[in-house]
Amino acid sequence: MTKPSLNTQVAPLVRDLIDNADALRVGVSKGSLGETLIDCGVESVGGLEAGRRLTEICLAGLGVVSFETASTSDKWPFLISVHTSQPVLACLGSQYAGWSISGKDADGKDFYMLGSGPARAMGSSEPLFKELDYRDKAETATLVLEADNAPPAALVEDVAKACGLPPEKLTFLFAPTSSLAGSVQVAGRSLEVALHKAHELHFPLENIVDGMATVPIPPPVPGFVEAMGRTNDAIIYGGRAQLYVEGDEAAAKKLAEELPSKNSKDYGKPFAEIFAAVKGDFYQIDPMLFSPAKVTVTCLSTGKSFEGGAIDEAVLNRSFS
Amino acid sequence: MTKPSLNTQVAPLVRDLIDNADALRVGVSKGSLGETLIDCGVESVGGLEAGRRLTEICLAGLGVVSFETASTSDKWPFLISVHTSQPVLACLGSQYAGWSISGKDADGKDFYMLGSGPARAMGSSEPLFKELDYRDKAETATLVLEADNAPPAALVEDVAKACGLPPEKLTFLFAPTSSLAGSVQVAGRSLEVALHKAHELHFPLENIVDGMATVPIPPPVPGFVEAMGRTNDAIIYGGRAQLYVEGDEAAAKKLAEELPSKNSKDYGKPFAEIFAAVKGDFYQIDPMLFSPAKVTVTCLSTGKSFEGGAIDEAVLNRSFS
Amino acid sequence: MTKPSLNTQVAPLVRDLIDNADALRVGVSKGSLGETLIDCGVESVGGLEAGRRLTEICLAGLGVVSFETASTSDKWPFLISVHTSQPVLACLGSQYAGWSISGKDADGKDFYMLGSGPARAMGSSEPLFKELDYRDKAETATLVLEADNAPPAALVEDVAKACGLPPEKLTFLFAPTSSLAGSVQVAGRSLEVALHKAHELHFPLENIVDGMATVPIPPPVPGFVEAMGRTNDAIIYGGRAQLYVEGDEAAAKKLAEELPSKNSKDYGKPFAEIFAAVKGDFYQIDPMLFSPAKVTVTCLSTGKSFEGGAIDEAVLNRSFS
Repeated sequence: MTKPSLNTQVAPLVRDLIDNADALRVGVSKGSLGETLIDCGVESVGGLEAGRRLTEICLAGLGVVSFETASTSDKWPFLISVHTSQPVLACLGSQYAGWSISGKDADGKDFYMLGSGPARAMGSSEPLFKELDYRDKAETATLVLEADNAPPAALVEDVAKACGLPPEKLTFLFAPTSSLAGSVQVAGRSLEVALHKAHELHFPLENIVDGMATVPIPPPVPGFVEAMGRTNDAIIYGGRAQLYVEGDEAAAKKLAEELPSKNSKDYGKPFAEIFAAVKGDFYQIDPMLFSPAKVTVTCLSTGKSFEGGAIDEAVLNRSFS
Repeated sequence: MTKPSLNTQVAPLVRDLIDNADALRVGVSKGSLGETLIDCGVESVGGLEAGRRLTEICLAGLGVVSFETASTSDKWPFLISVHTSQPVLACLGSQYAGWSISGKDADGKDFYMLGSGPARAMGSSEPLFKELDYRDKAETATLVLEADNAPPAALVEDVAKACGLPPEKLTFLFAPTSSLAGSVQVAGRSLEVALHKAHELHFPLENIVDGMATVPIPPPVPGFVEAMGRTNDAIIYGGRAQLYVEGDEAAAKKLAEELPSKNSKDYGKPFAEIFAAVKGDFYQIDPMLFSPAKVTVTCLSTGKSFEGGAIDEAVLNRSFS
Repeated sequence: MTKPSLNTQVAPLVRDLIDNADALRVGVSKGSLGETLIDCGVESVGGLEAGRRLTEICLAGLGVVSFETASTSDKWPFLISVHTSQPVLACLGSQYAGWSISGKDADGKDFYMLGSGPARAMGSSEPLFKELDYRDKAETATLVLEADNAPPAALVEDVAKACGLPPEKLTFLFAPTSSLAGSVQVAGRSLEVALHKAHELHFPLENIVDGMATVPIPPPVPGFVEAMGRTNDAIIYGGRAQLYVEGDEAAAKKLAEELPSKNSKDYGKPFAEIFAAVKGDFYQIDPMLFSPAKVTVTCLSTGKSFEGGAIDEAVLNRSFS
């Protein structure tokens, strides 16, 4: 079966965001090289709905992101839920923030940004794409940046070159993690994080057939570390995912046991505290921490389901409050 | 940032309702002055889905209204949830039933109707629009009436004049509160009611950045008072809202404490009983009663959330049963 | 009021599925007689989203099918929810698998298939359509088959003849019950099953005005009997429905009491076990078993609601595990 073109698939969603920019309170402008810039939460207010759409754009238009109410009595009743018709391609081939782009901006200052979204599949040299056996080729490219400013011209040039497109064919969407849209966009990675950790655990990606995930909407908080903390905690202590996998039962059972965040040695306190304890050295944090709190894995070859982990409302409340 | 034109924004939703009138069981006709009439629950059956769309039209197409299931074990498991990319403009500038129009119909009988929907922003002289610093100017106008009959010609003329449009450019949608569509439409005001009470409490509207709300679907009941009772109770005893606000923590905390319905002196019994106790004199009822049962207010400047109120299942059951 | 043309109503949904076949992992091809074949889970992977769309196609485009999260702590948190603007027509006139078509395939082997979807309203001779007082006449026809292979040419010919259309105007969608899409499609019959049993109980269909229903997504399992077991159990032990009915209170109360599955003499163990106990003779199973676990019936003429049945998590867990 032919795989869809991620950048072609996402184009109508980007178009619709631009057409409704006023209603969605996002700012659309042209950058110095002719690239399209969509500000979802820096100068523009953006909001939850802008974030919901931004998340669908991160998923290359292959997923549905919805706000939900889990119950009327819990402390954090509103959820962000994700399902996609192509979990591996949408989450790992697009949504994962895997394209690291660095350089010097116009003032000679170093910049370092992580790009997510379908442009990765055209321009990023991540080895992951070999494993996915996928590269995109399209007329336009769309990149999402978790950032508190528009991308510097040097970054735009790099992305254009890597994608083999003139800058005017590129669209950059950006929002800081601390904004409403950014909070939704980052916490909306619940399914992606599950797939990414499954990959780290050497579970064969081609055996992941389908999946769904949900997290409570983290309340935005000023400051990058604090905001990163809450969006991570939404997933680590409040996230719930179900994966449908091929392969034998033993592998599905093992995945359900190993996937949940609580297996990590760093599990147990809000992410911002963990981050502070390692003095902000991200690479000292156990990568196994990044996964949903509770996971169900259904083995399609036998129909048996396995469950692991648990929602941790106490840590979630400490983080969100 | 330019604010969207509410009446322009809503036009495709009205068009879609007309195009699917048979499927949605709504009646579309032309009135005596050439105005378009959409009956969502008087002669036509309408239904929950017609009500869902009617609610999105009340929100001027700036919000998403969805039916949800809170849990499979509660007594009233199905919910109406609302979120909007422009809470203040969509809820107060459009959804709020603030345009009171009275006159004499063709038979010389007095009529008095409350209009909601985007036409308010063109034609209504409510002082609220000064505070919102918003007036709409569009080619067409759409008004929603909680009513058990089509608007009399005199009302159509008044609205046309106020909007500066010929009657054939006007669309009126109407449903009684006791109909399925009406129940949804009125209970779907959960977020609007929260914003309206925040305004009554003198919380600055410009500080309300985003919000979400949910209520159980009230079972329709014959009779205006009974139906009004249940739709109000859905919000007052069963509604849950979260607001995201700018400003300092003290103001956010105060809002979370004061906003929930339980602060009202009239709180504690089904609305229809309260209404009967004041012998139907609406203006004797404490306006502070009209707000969601439980509220979370997130202060965006510090990231702290405050909670107030509680869902009251006992009163809800008394009202709905 | 004119009833909509089911096959015309569904056409854009079929078109959209075809246009997004790669993204949705469904296989589109032409059959030997020129008919369009859409494989949602035999050779093609399909998935939950393909199943969601397949269910909306079964409902003739008159309903909304959504995935939801009931809570983050239950064992089977993800739900399939259904609501429709025309419950009786969408569920009984289209979604119900009532068209039995049998014959001999090209190899002389007997086949027997049950068709659902809007083509029934054009070609099937079920007496139900007299009661519904509805027949469709359209330029194209769409039939859904719960099957593990494409329809044989003889079936295509029969359907074409019955519908009075050339085969190239027909679209057949198919998925086995054991596939992801098939699981969703069959469990997505929660509201239909409620209406069908109401009909069996001689409740007047014209008195059913509106409804909603939800079930947990059954985890797919290989084997027709096992898969049929789980999709049935999702409804019988995990399904929740609300019906809004005309007529007197006594009839609504009776319906709420009699409708839930627990009134059946066969209630109490997973469906696959019941099926085994009667040695696979489907017609020995009490037809009263097929209905949601828990039901609320709202009597529109008085506003009173009646509840019957209960979710049975124990049997659900036995079935799904």
